[in-house]
Amino acid sequence: MELTIALLAGDGIGPEVIQQAVKVCDAVATKFNHQIHWKPALTGAAAIDAVGDPYPDSTHDICVNSDAVLFGAIGHPRFDNDPSAKVRPEQGLLKMRQKLGLFANVRPTFTFESLIDRSPLKRERIEGTDLVFLRELTGGIYFGKRGREDNGDTAYDTCTYTRMEVKRLAKKGFELAMKRSKKLCCVDKANVLESSRLWRETVQAMEKDYPEVEVSYEFVDAVAMRLVQWPNSYDVLITENLFGDILTDEASVISGSMGLMPSASIGESIGLYEPIHGSYPQAAGKDIANPLATVLSAAMMFDDLGLPDEANAIRMVVNKSLAEGMVTEDLADKNKGRKTSEVGNWLAKNL
Amino acid sequence: MELTIALLAGDGIGPEVIQQAVKVCDAVATKFNHQIHWKPALTGAAAIDAVGDPYPDSTHDICVNSDAVLFGAIGHPRFDNDPSAKVRPEQGLLKMRQKLGLFANVRPTFTFESLIDRSPLKRERIEGTDLVFLRELTGGIYFGKRGREDNGDTAYDTCTYTRMEVKRLAKKGFELAMKRSKKLCCVDKANVLESSRLWRETVQAMEKDYPEVEVSYEFVDAVAMRLVQWPNSYDVLITENLFGDILTDEASVISGSMGLMPSASIGESIGLYEPIHGSYPQAAGKDIANPLATVLSAAMMFDDLGLPDEANAIRMVVNKSLAEGMVTEDLADKNKGRKTSEVGNWLAKNL
Ligand SMILES: CC(C)[C@H](C(=O)O)[C@@H](O)C(=O)O
Ligand SMILES: CC(C)[C@H](C(=O)O)[C@@H](O)C(=O)O
Repeated sequence: MELTIALLAGDGIGPEVIQQAVKVCDAVATKFNHQIHWKPALTGAAAIDAVGDPYPDSTHDICVNSDAVLFGAIGHPRFDNDPSAKVRPEQGLLKMRQKLGLFANVRPTFTFESLIDRSPLKRERIEGTDLVFLRELTGGIYFGKRGREDNGDTAYDTCTYTRMEVKRLAKKGFELAMKRSKKLCCVDKANVLESSRLWRETVQAMEKDYPEVEVSYEFVDAVAMRLVQWPNSYDVLITENLFGDILTDEASVISGSMGLMPSASIGESIGLYEPIHGSYPQAAGKDIANPLATVLSAAMMFDDLGLPDEANAIRMVVNKSLAEGMVTEDLADKNKGRKTSEVGNWLAKNL
Repeated sequence: MELTIALLAGDGIGPEVIQQAVKVCDAVATKFNHQIHWKPALTGAAAIDAVGDPYPDSTHDICVNSDAVLFGAIGHPRFDNDPSAKVRPEQGLLKMRQKLGLFANVRPTFTFESLIDRSPLKRERIEGTDLVFLRELTGGIYFGKRGREDNGDTAYDTCTYTRMEVKRLAKKGFELAMKRSKKLCCVDKANVLESSRLWRETVQAMEKDYPEVEVSYEFVDAVAMRLVQWPNSYDVLITENLFGDILTDEASVISGSMGLMPSASIGESIGLYEPIHGSYPQAAGKDIANPLATVLSAAMMFDDLGLPDEANAIRMVVNKSLAEGMVTEDLADKNKGRKTSEVGNWLAKNL
């Protein structure tokens, strides 16, 4: 099979971790007789520096003409304490999500037996946790009308959802639940927000089409608690954009394997695959960043491209690297950490 | 001193836990030579049943004519899966917050040495945690314009903040930080939301008035992570209404002492004191609910009434009850749990 994959390395440690994923994907391709055409493109602060736009049209063109997008990380400290900067890397992210129609962010949280003791939670709380958030990604307060009034003294943001937006996200949720344990939790704040009431009534109306799926409705504040108390009581969770932003990040740290958590952003056509960690500027260029989240994101990509054997081969070699201690310093015993590139090479070779 | 205190017991376990707080307050009054005039008033589902309004004017009148309000909990399961019910207990809560001008919700999270092993987090993560959230409580998306369009297929909510609203909340935050470790964290989503950018710029402009306070600015998703990873790295946090709803609940479970966490809602004049737990309908009427969060809320009330010795006397007797195992079943070894009323009596007697 011939695959064209857009490669958006981005900022900070993005390029380093992406490079390892490329090695692993190429090794998979060789093993399974595929050919991957990589199409590098600019994004984030790197793109602002080069062309003044964090998601330039040229990058968008490359993405829409590819089978998938592999993404590193964006963000640069020079923008961090200047929320009013005219052009910011995050804007590129939002523009990209919207222009590529990536309305569902798929964020699994799972545990690795060998890493479970790194969790801030006690073993008995976290063991067996295997949940997936579907976060709505192109609507809500991220994309609503916002502005200032009263000479700048009043600021507002608008959270808007249409039934169609809720439905297509919820559909992915029901479908995923059918493939898993048939449990779906709809997270909202329907006791206060009108948009949440639309979410809840839309999901309620869809229940009859998935009679096997057991649906629960929980308020976002209650979920924020239970995620810490009993994370393994959840399976598939669906939620709107902002709640998803907060809860998926909260969920990511409970496993103790945050540096390993992959994600997919999907829509009607193309998918984008990226590690959930950020650009981690302090580590940039040092060849110390953990590439596994990016590598596991590539596995999600193969799954979505209809190549589950390829995906599983990646997951197996990642497990092997963990078992054999072929890991970067964040996961290693003192002074036993391997370089980012070394881990990438090892994975590619042992695949 | 003569004190008039409005007593809003509310629903579920509300009346039972309130009753214990009353016993303790009366014992404090006797000990320190005060007289408390309790003014019971209806609220929540109980008020809906009685007069069709979860926060009737008669209750409001009692509150404004009191020195403080002691509050139990509201909410009833019959409203839970009916987010569109015309009159809901939560509306009473929101109306009460707004009409009493309770713009700041003070939510401490701290640990009790004897309960630390009940935390879902490992001891070394949670030890020494002592943080306070100041959640803005009468603005933001809770009170903005909301509605439907397109025959109900589009729903929207508006998050609005004025500089004045941010300032008065932040002022409480700076003042509290000055009394504690002089560290203040402003939690926002300034990389996306205009209202958050107003928060950030307003707080930034206030920094010069509190040169000793070290202010940090963090995104809400990052805080949702760090609260689980390193809760003891925080001291005072200020944030807007919805973020505060989510984060304070998340913070409440990390200590392992959720049933003990008190809160205060304050404004320019009167304060309202309530346990952070809900109405816990399954336990209602069984005399098993833990009254300590309500009792500790009464301690916060005495503090704010300018009676710190009275407040400390309450905290000391609570600590004593914990040390001696005079606790309800949620905190007790198997079959050693005491009744709600028994704990209340013991506290009053041992004060
Ligand atoms: C950088 C920011 C705009 C972004 C978001 O809030 O969506 C990030 O936090 C994420 O979750 O991908
Ligand atoms: C019941 C609900 C409206 C309320 C809120 O969201 O403010 C509650 O969750 C709280 O935090 O007091």
